Parts: sequence; C-alpha cells; structure tokens
Amino acid sequence: MSEILSTISGMSGYRVAGVHCGIKKNDALDFALIVSDSPATCAGVFTTNLVKAAPVLVDQEKLNRSGGRVRALAVNSGCANAATGQQGLDNANQTARYVAEKIDCHEDEVLVMSTGVIGVQLPIDKIRRGIDLAFQQLSEDGWDDVARAIMTTDTYPKLASVTKDSFQVAGIAKGAGMIAPNMATMLSFIVTDAQLSRDDSQIVLNAVSDHTYNRIVVDGDMSTNDTVLLLANGEVKPTQDIEEAIGTVSKKLAQDIVRDGEGVTKFVTVAVNGTATDSEARQIANTIATSPLVKTAFYGNDANWGRIIAAAGRAGVNFDPAKIQLKVTLGVDETLTGAPLLLVFDGTPCDYSEAMATDIVSASEFTYTLIVGSGQGSATVWTCDISHDYVSINAEYRT
Amino acid sequence: MSEILSTISGMSGYRVAGVHCGIKKNDALDFALIVSDSPATCAGVFTTNLVKAAPVLVDQEKLNRSGGRVRALAVNSGCANAATGQQGLDNANQTARYVAEKIDCHEDEVLVMSTGVIGVQLPIDKIRRGIDLAFQQLSEDGWDDVARAIMTTDTYPKLASVTKDSFQVAGIAKGAGMIAPNMATMLSFIVTDAQLSRDDSQIVLNAVSDHTYNRIVVDGDMSTNDTVLLLANGEVKPTQDIEEAIGTVSKKLAQDIVRDGEGVTKFVTVAVNGTATDSEARQIANTIATSPLVKTAFYGNDANWGRIIAAAGRAGVNFDPAKIQLKVTLGVDETLTGAPLLLVFDGTPCDYSEAMATDIVSASEFTYTLIVGSGQGSATVWTCDISHDYVSINAEYRT
Repeated sequence: MSEILSTISGMSGYRVAGVHCGIKKNDALDFALIVSDSPATCAGVFTTNLVKAAPVLVDQEKLNRSGGRVRALAVNSGCANAATGQQGLDNANQTARYVAEKIDCHEDEVLVMSTGVIGVQLPIDKIRRGIDLAFQQLSEDGWDDVARAIMTTDTYPKLASVTKDSFQVAGIAKGAGMIAPNMATMLSFIVTDAQLSRDDSQIVLNAVSDHTYNRIVVDGDMSTNDTVLLLANGEVKPTQDIEEAIGTVSKKLAQDIVRDGEGVTKFVTVAVNGTATDSEARQIANTIATSPLVKTAFYGNDANWGRIIAAAGRAGVNFDPAKIQLKVTLGVDETLTGAPLLLVFDGTPCDYSEAMATDIVSASEFTYTLIVGSGQGSATVWTCDISHDYVSINAEYRT
Repeated sequence: MSEILSTISGMSGYRVAGVHCGIKKNDALDFALIVSDSPATCAGVFTTNLVKAAPVLVDQEKLNRSGGRVRALAVNSGCANAATGQQGLDNANQTARYVAEKIDCHEDEVLVMSTGVIGVQLPIDKIRRGIDLAFQQLSEDGWDDVARAIMTTDTYPKLASVTKDSFQVAGIAKGAGMIAPNMATMLSFIVTDAQLSRDDSQIVLNAVSDHTYNRIVVDGDMSTNDTVLLLANGEVKPTQDIEEAIGTVSKKLAQDIVRDGEGVTKFVTVAVNGTATDSEARQIANTIATSPLVKTAFYGNDANWGRIIAAAGRAGVNFDPAKIQLKVTLGVDETLTGAPLLLVFDGTPCDYSEAMATDIVSASEFTYTLIVGSGQGSATVWTCDISHDYVSINAEYRT
C-alpha cells in the first residue's frame, strides 16, 4: 500500500488556482482552473444519467475530437449548468474557448465541469471574471483552494496524494449528496506527472472507478453532472505500479465523500459474500446500502438486522433465506478491529448480546458482513446513515 | 364513484374483535380476530420479498390446500414473526389451529398475519390469551378495534367502506413504513357480504392491487410480511360493479397509508405521461417517488424540479431530455384544483414565478406531471415527503 496524504504538494507540471468569481455568496471560492504545462492525456468516466448536464455533453465531444488531449480544466460550483438547453451548451463552450485563448491552445483541449443547482444558466460574465482572476493566481501550490472552490455541501475540502520514486498521483473530489451506487457519482479529477497513454489511462480509470467511486452510496440519487477525469502529462513512464497509486488516491477520495456525506454521522461498510457472481453480491450490497430503513437504523445506533435481511430479500437476487449469516464488526475494510459478532445464522437470530451489538453500531465506523450462500461472488460498498441533518440540508438546499 | 366512508358498520356475516394480549406495552391493542359466519372465498396478494415471514409462507400453503376457503383471520402487531425459522412456522400454525378448534373448522381455513419487529419469536402464550379474549368480545361492531390492533407506527386506524344496494365492501389497512412501489407492501384485508368465486376474487384483487396498493411509496423498502386478503362470504351475486367498490375501498386505504406514512407532511401525486408503455411510465414515476432528494425537497416546500428530472433520467427508461415538460398543480388526482404551473418545457426552465411554485408545493397535497414524449404510456403513483420525523421514528423504532 502506498502512503496516502490528505494534501497535495510538489506536483510538478500543473499550475492551479481556486478563486471567487461571484456565483456563490459570501466570497466563497466558486471557480477553479487547472492548467497542465504540456498537453496531458485525459481519460474520463461520466454519469450514466439520461439527463446529462451541458459540461458532460461538451466534455465527451471534446475528448472524442481531441483524442483525449487536454491542457486545462475549468470548474465552477454553485451552478450545475444542467437542463439549460442550447444556451447551456453555448456557455460551456464559451468557457472553454476563453481559457483556450489565454493559454493559446485548441478549445477542444479545455474541459469544463460544473456542480450546483440544476436549471439555472451559467453566469458567463462571472465565469470570465473567474478565468481572469484564476490566471493571475496560477501556482503549483493552489490545490487546497481548488478543492475548496468545487465544494457544494461538503464540509471540508477533499484532497489526496501518493508519492512514488518516479512519479506522483494527486486527486481532488467533491461529493456530499446525489451519491449513488452506479457509475461516476460526483466530481473528481486525478492528475499525475507520470506518462500514460490515453488507452492505458482509460483502462486504469475504468478499473479504479469500478472499485472506488462506484462503490459508494450517500442517498442513492445519481446526478446529472458526475464526472471523473484522469490527467497524465509526464515524460517518464512509471516504473512502479501507477494503477495501485491511482486506486489508493481514488479510494481515499471516495471514502471521504461518504464520510463527509450530507448529515453523515456513520461510515458503514456493507460486505456481501457467497453469491454466484460478484455482480449479484454487489446488487444485494447496493440494495442494503441504499435502504432508508437500514440507514435510519444506523443513525439510531440500532443493530436492527431485520431491515438488512429484508433489504437483501428484495434485491432481485435469488438465495435461500434459511441459509444466510450476518455479522457485524467494529472498523472498516482492512482495519477491522475486534471480533465479529454473529447476529444471524441459518436465517434465524443467534443468541447474541444486544448490548454488544449496540456497542458496535454506536461506533462511527463498522462493517456488516452478509453471507448468503457458498458461491464465490463477493462485493463491498461503503455507505452512511440518514440523519436529521441530511433532511435539513436537502430540504433547505436552495434557500 | 361510490360514496366512501372512513368507518365500517352494518357489515353482516362477520364478527370481529381487537384486544390487548400483551405483545405491545401500555395496554395497546395488539391482536385482532375476524370470523366469517360461513366459509368465505379468499384471494391473497403477498410480498415478493425473498425473505418471507412465517405467516406469509403459512397462509400461501393454507390457501393452496383449502382452495381459498377461509373462516377466520388472526392478526397480531408488535412482532412480525419473520426470520424465525421452523419455530416461527410452528407458532403461526399453532395460532391457526387454536382458532380452528374454537370455531370448529379445519385449521387450513384460518389464516394468520403478523406485523412488527423482525427476528423475534411470536409469544405463543400471549397469542392464545388474545384468541381467548377476542372470542369473548366478537361482534359486528368491533372493526375500529380491529383497525387499532394492527397499527404499528400508524397514527390513526385506517378503515373504509362502501355500501351498494345489494352488498357492502369494507376494508382495513396498516402501513406507515416499508412501503415500496412493488407489490403488496402492507397488511390489508377487505371483506364483502357479496358472493364471489375464488377465481373472480383473485382476478379482482390482482387488478385492484395493481392500481392502488402497488402505486404507493413511503420509503421504497419492501417488507417481509406484506399481505392483502379479500374475503367474500355472501350468498347473493352482486348486481352492481363490485370491482369498482373494492377498488374504491382499496384506493382510499392505500392513499391513507401514504397520508399517514412515517413523519409525512405532504401527499404528492407523481404522474408520468408520454412513454411508449404504461410500465415505462411507472418505472419513471417510481424512481421519482422514491428519490430521497425529491422527497426532502417536498418537505422543504422547494419546487426543486431539477431533482425530479435528474431522478427521471436515471430510471432506466429511454427518452429525449430535450423534449420533456414538467408542471405542478395544487390537489390530487380527480380533485386537482387551480391551473397547472408549467416549470419545464423542451427540457429547459420556463419563465414561471418561483413564488407561485413555492405556494403550490407548500400545500399539503399537490401533483407533479412529467411528460417525456408523445407515447401513449402513462402511470400515477402516490408518494410523500421525507421529514425529520421519518428519521426520528425509524432511528428509534426498536427503543
């Protein structure tokens, strides 16, 4: 495992800035620019929602036309530029064009990302001001401002980096709500100073996303803007395992998205084993991880396993309810601590101590493991509770 | 339309009682008995959850063996008798046998229903005491007690009846949580003094359920115990449309389940039109009606239509986002009041008054209508908001 940091520094070949351009109130940072000194290869993973925001449609076209060659990313928060029709597409393209003029590259080499409220046109004058401001402030040390500039209901900026002998990988993400168990699900971009071909880059990003960004649940909603980009602009081919480093950065960012999900007080791992295939296990794990009743029980420190097996039973995967086992353990993933407490064996309750179960699920991090049979399939997803604050945040989001 | 009452009286041929047998605290009613004077035909619709409670498994077998001939229903709240293994099945069968001895019928002519916490064995001694008590109190007027005895987190008993010249239809339901957009989803039983063959009975119940009980969403979870039963014990064939009367009773009960859903402050109709098929429209409507972000916006009096179209876009149904229309109207179904306010046309926001939109969604009942194309498919589902109280109720349910 690579050592992972929550900061980014010493990443060569990129200059970045996060500024306030006026979309958000109270001088909050709302626009970020990332410029690669030389053309970078770029791979992308995008929302599978049928209703795609303008920047998603525009970026997909640009990547096709440029063959995945990118010089800059322009990112704003406070406005999703989604459900904005032709004007939305025009604004996204204008943003890219203005940046391209400044760095003297082709407009297809500039990608755009937006996050915020749906159905509002991008204030293009403010974006232009943001671009001007950002260009004045570009530096190798601006990553914290970049991470802050893309936040919506996040409570802290999300950065991660891994340094190897021959290269560095760094990433930034924003999350908080509309985090679903399918595809992309937030904004994230990962940069490296190693060399990666575009094809390798896409293969790595697909594989990594499938085990990180696509394994997290906050509320089960899927956004119109979800995008993950991977930029590589180095001249040296990595001598070590770059996929592992990208995976480590992505896993940290993905887990941070859940930990900092809207109103979250618990970080819960749901592991399902014993299905015929991994995808069956994933389907069951996602159904459990998305169930409002399961998630409110997490919030209530209630080891209410009946809701977990009821959710499993409606997941659309065949198993024998009389054979299932369920256990709960303190901790997460590889850092599981303490012995597992067996709650259910052969489909019926074990004679466990309710006080011990309550102790475990009263912690801020724990893991439920459901074994539904003797197959080789397995899957793990990370989820959270639904709290009073989740309701407050989302009832009051636009006001 | 038949005139619908929220009470049941004058239903001949059935004697009923609701009593306290000791499962619930504070002398709350927790056991109900419904006895048909003569053998009734019985149709049933059951949960499609793979994890089925003992009473569901037992009733399905009994109905098969008896050919749908029923003399009594024994119903308890406070314990779901789910995930209880062989002992759970034995307890369900013992309950039926004890009732059968009392009325001198075959044990397969007695059905059982349970609702409450999963994973706890049925306290069979208390159930026997309940049966004894209930037999002492059977009367034609006990329906209100029956409705109260099956409540869990419901805040009021749910009764409905329709009287025609030649027959009466009455029904009772409990709901509140674990109400999903697929199949059954709660406990309900409907009785009539008309004559219905078992086959007709099942055809009517299937059709009616599909347009009432299967069109409601509280939280999208599906329970292990969902059961709807229809009993008919009359000697006179109905001269009027009994399906319409059963439909009216079921629709009232289904809508009451949503109105009295856990923590509910809003009753919202989601209508989707213009798909190729009705089932596509239903898939979109269910996705919208189950979305936590949509439901928290309802709670926040926020006409946040971006969340509605984002939910529609991930429903797995193909449509052109650039062609959609969305409007919101005060009121429900056939009682829509006021003019619809057009929010979205051709996929982009209309120039509507945000204050007017807020006014409409600040009411306790309103309807969103989404038109996704020019197809003939359509569907309507009834849903509600997610409130702070929903979280409180479900975080604290077992404590």
